Amino acid sequence: MTAATVHPLIDRHQQTLDRAVTALGERDYWSPYPEFPKAYGEDAMAVGAAAFEALKGTTRLAADELVGPAVDAGGEVSPFGGDLDIAYGYRSADALMAAAVAAQPAWAKASPLLRAAVCLEILARINARSVEFGFAVQHTTGQAFGMAFQAGGPHAQDRGLEAVAAAFVEQTKIPAKANWTKPQGKRDPLQMEKEFLVRPRGVGLVIGCNTFPTWNGFPGFFASLATGNTVVVKPHPRAILPLALTVEIARDVLTEAGFDADVVQLAPEQPGEGLAKTLATRPEVAIIDYTGSTAFGDWLEENARQALVYTEKAGVNTVLVESTDNYAAALGNLAFSLSLYSGQMCTTPQNLLIPRAGIATDQGSKSFAEVVADLSTAVGRLLSDDAKASQLLGAVVNPGVLQRIERAEKGELGELALAPRAVVSPEFPEAVIRTPALVTLDAAKDELPGECFGPVAFAIAVDSAAHGVELLAETVRTRGAMSAAAYTTSPEVEGAVVDAAVDAGVSLSLNLTGQVFVNQTAAFSDLHGTGANPAANAAYTDAAFVASRFRVMEVRRHNG
Amino acid sequence: MTAATVHPLIDRHQQTLDRAVTALGERDYWSPYPEFPKAYGEDAMAVGAAAFEALKGTTRLAADELVGPAVDAGGEVSPFGGDLDIAYGYRSADALMAAAVAAQPAWAKASPLLRAAVCLEILARINARSVEFGFAVQHTTGQAFGMAFQAGGPHAQDRGLEAVAAAFVEQTKIPAKANWTKPQGKRDPLQMEKEFLVRPRGVGLVIGCNTFPTWNGFPGFFASLATGNTVVVKPHPRAILPLALTVEIARDVLTEAGFDADVVQLAPEQPGEGLAKTLATRPEVAIIDYTGSTAFGDWLEENARQALVYTEKAGVNTVLVESTDNYAAALGNLAFSLSLYSGQMCTTPQNLLIPRAGIATDQGSKSFAEVVADLSTAVGRLLSDDAKASQLLGAVVNPGVLQRIERAEKGELGELALAPRAVVSPEFPEAVIRTPALVTLDAAKDELPGECFGPVAFAIAVDSAAHGVELLAETVRTRGAMSAAAYTTSPEVEGAVVDAAVDAGVSLSLNLTGQVFVNQTAAFSDLHGTGANPAANAAYTDAAFVASRFRVMEVRRHNG
Repeated sequence: MTAATVHPLIDRHQQTLDRAVTALGERDYWSPYPEFPKAYGEDAMAVGAAAFEALKGTTRLAADELVGPAVDAGGEVSPFGGDLDIAYGYRSADALMAAAVAAQPAWAKASPLLRAAVCLEILARINARSVEFGFAVQHTTGQAFGMAFQAGGPHAQDRGLEAVAAAFVEQTKIPAKANWTKPQGKRDPLQMEKEFLVRPRGVGLVIGCNTFPTWNGFPGFFASLATGNTVVVKPHPRAILPLALTVEIARDVLTEAGFDADVVQLAPEQPGEGLAKTLATRPEVAIIDYTGSTAFGDWLEENARQALVYTEKAGVNTVLVESTDNYAAALGNLAFSLSLYSGQMCTTPQNLLIPRAGIATDQGSKSFAEVVADLSTAVGRLLSDDAKASQLLGAVVNPGVLQRIERAEKGELGELALAPRAVVSPEFPEAVIRTPALVTLDAAKDELPGECFGPVAFAIAVDSAAHGVELLAETVRTRGAMSAAAYTTSPEVEGAVVDAAVDAGVSLSLNLTGQVFVNQTAAFSDLHGTGANPAANAAYTDAAFVASRFRVMEVRRHNG
Repeated sequence: MTAATVHPLIDRHQQTLDRAVTALGERDYWSPYPEFPKAYGEDAMAVGAAAFEALKGTTRLAADELVGPAVDAGGEVSPFGGDLDIAYGYRSADALMAAAVAAQPAWAKASPLLRAAVCLEILARINARSVEFGFAVQHTTGQAFGMAFQAGGPHAQDRGLEAVAAAFVEQTKIPAKANWTKPQGKRDPLQMEKEFLVRPRGVGLVIGCNTFPTWNGFPGFFASLATGNTVVVKPHPRAILPLALTVEIARDVLTEAGFDADVVQLAPEQPGEGLAKTLATRPEVAIIDYTGSTAFGDWLEENARQALVYTEKAGVNTVLVESTDNYAAALGNLAFSLSLYSGQMCTTPQNLLIPRAGIATDQGSKSFAEVVADLSTAVGRLLSDDAKASQLLGAVVNPGVLQRIERAEKGELGELALAPRAVVSPEFPEAVIRTPALVTLDAAKDELPGECFGPVAFAIAVDSAAHGVELLAETVRTRGAMSAAAYTTSPEVEGAVVDAAVDAGVSLSLNLTGQVFVNQTAAFSDLHGTGANPAANAAYTDAAFVASRFRVMEVRRHNG
């Protein structure tokens, strides 16, 4: 690696990096990555679709550059129909660790600026292939293409860039060199020359999830990479492809920049191998980023004691519906939030708390039953057309979700107010697609439901606004939450729910009636998660998410 | 609490805070706290001495404002002679936790700026009593007054202020409010109004040490306090007073500013109670700062799973002596480092690695034996006068240290090259004072010694510079280290030892021959510890030390 081969990357990306750093401080809207396919060229859709089709039946991260034979990890069957039939090169845990350690030194010593530039080049190449990534995300997660493209493409890239920018800020907070001059009265001052050297912790392990492999994977991936750690990506067995493409691109960029490709490795597992557990407890692994079930997240926190463990697990998201001055728009906003990706987002609202005596609205007071009926109508109207509904709902991601829908349908989860409806996608007739179920409960006699991942929401009668506020806070504290929302026109109730949410440790969206939804957060502005309740111990992306991924060593000597 | 009662603190301290923030970024010399007693007034010594004398025989944190009766925690017998005879109000773990939780809300909601101002007022009042603190530190730690005043007074205050400044920077990195405007092509833009609310984790527990109760206690104390946590200070049973005074001052300032005094509490323990373990595992305790033995530090990391645990434990500090262009000054500097506070600093060098074939110097080559002899002479000369020696050595802090000195003296630790000498302080004839012992070993046949806390150093013959570099790195990796140093005129050796130290995770001082010593670090410039080796998992004070002590919750709503 010579200076000539690396400076072009800094030249190319310095402006974007600077702008991202500014954006993090301002928290206004900003993104360098367009969120509509047409921005990527007239024929972007066709090119991307063809690229995705061409991936099928191939072997990724081919065996010639890998230890061990390529294996088919199984698992990757599109929720829209069809096996992706892609094989991935396999490495044993020993081989992965040996390669990660061997690749470490040069990457560790690269400047934070150069590492940021390499990361931005990786992101730029991912961005250029956003449509292809969109299809890869769609056919591994069950997200409809529109969402898979946005959330799995530019929005995931935003979260990755955000992590790179935050990591750059933290690494350069202490200057690389400093002079220290201490006056000594009439004697000569003491003078020291100091160097501060940023060094990574070791190997960063990223454990991917099924539903948002890139959106939830990129923050940890880029935070660890930008801080000089080598990274091993263990994808979910059902959603390997988007992260395999990411690793391929990263390895290309690293190689071109003169680094060892093994700074980034993919770790697909053989069926039943349990590779994540093996890797997570390796002494070389110093950082783990995980998104997924609470059970495995808890296992990691308990067992991967040698590592910093950043987890996003599961929670129960609550909405307090107390009053509104735009009833129709509130219902429309909620209906959309419940329907988007069939409620298979960690941020989808689940428990809707509604005073038993009803709510005040701009259309007069509405009883609990009326609110439930009107919300059901709003959902029904939103999803009345199968083709359009398919584009919002995507597909059911796995059999567990379908089972929960069926339990709701049978009335096993409470009184069924809105039955789920099977939707047939004209484009993907094989896909299992269901509209949300709405179940009613009464907090006076029913226990509040725990996490019920998928398109099942609960309208829960509560005694009063105050009771609802109390239950919201209690749910956050005991079950965890990735989001919370409230509808109220009362300053008192608003004050109470803000205090309760903030004290319990969840972020709150108030009176959403437009095109912003409680389940969506925007990089560079909204934090995703808080790290302050049991659903997650970290947030995308605050300083705490990046500042511990590296350490600073000092070398000092007399000056002059 | 009204705005009028709090703004004066911000007015009073804003400039100092701003200057401290600048200093953290520049890392040049800076301190607002003068390091000589005379700067505190002509009669500062007399006033401070009288104030200290007046503390003897009193009850601190009197029972009238405390739960439970005052108890004498025992333990506080001055290494210079005399029982301090001070009783401290006692609270049970339950009472401490209940009070800490009750005091939380208003402090949690105070702005980061107001919290910083309150912390700076606490520091200002501590600073004004620096001489009194100096005596309190002297007579609990065994440091000679000169050092106790500086390290326990202004230098500790520097580390506290540094933590406040770092915490302020991190808490205000995300703006308190932001507007978010996302263009929507021809449609109206999406607009959101966002608030970001900083909230603490819970109760911060500070577990103090015997040797540096304020210097090692203030970083965690002020970092947790400035980020809105309530703080419980569990002092070492032999060094309660300096932290009790700190807590008294903090409670006064908090009360005057309109906060609950119980935002800060002292937790002296009854004899044999083991209160630190009880407190450390309480669910209310979210953060622990600990300085002390490796055994208890490891216990905390293993058992206090509900908390963020910042530990500074023990290590083995190494100096490579390969060559020098100022032999006399190098020996003088080393002799001072070995003697200061009788080697009872976590940063005191212990293992001196010297090539068996000798070293090149400006006085010609010196054999291993000559270096050992010349270093012994330098130590002897430095400490030849009992009165002056007492002011450098302080007193032996506890019987364990004395036992190690006696083992060295008997030749049980290796061949004795320099026998420790009993020093009689004219001022404190009862004090146990010993000059350092120097023991020789040969790495070819002897195992490298582990931690031997106190005034026992080892001159160890190694095969070569490269061998020494290797042993230095290995020691850091396996035993941990709080400091490392090297003397070399060879660019090759310097490059090798820099790489080895940085890779192993320790900061390095090179060719110290003047009035800067390897065992001293300066706040706002030098990091203390790295968090990158087994001796400590944190550093005073980088962003990682403060950024996780709070979380950020967001409240967002449509704008306009």
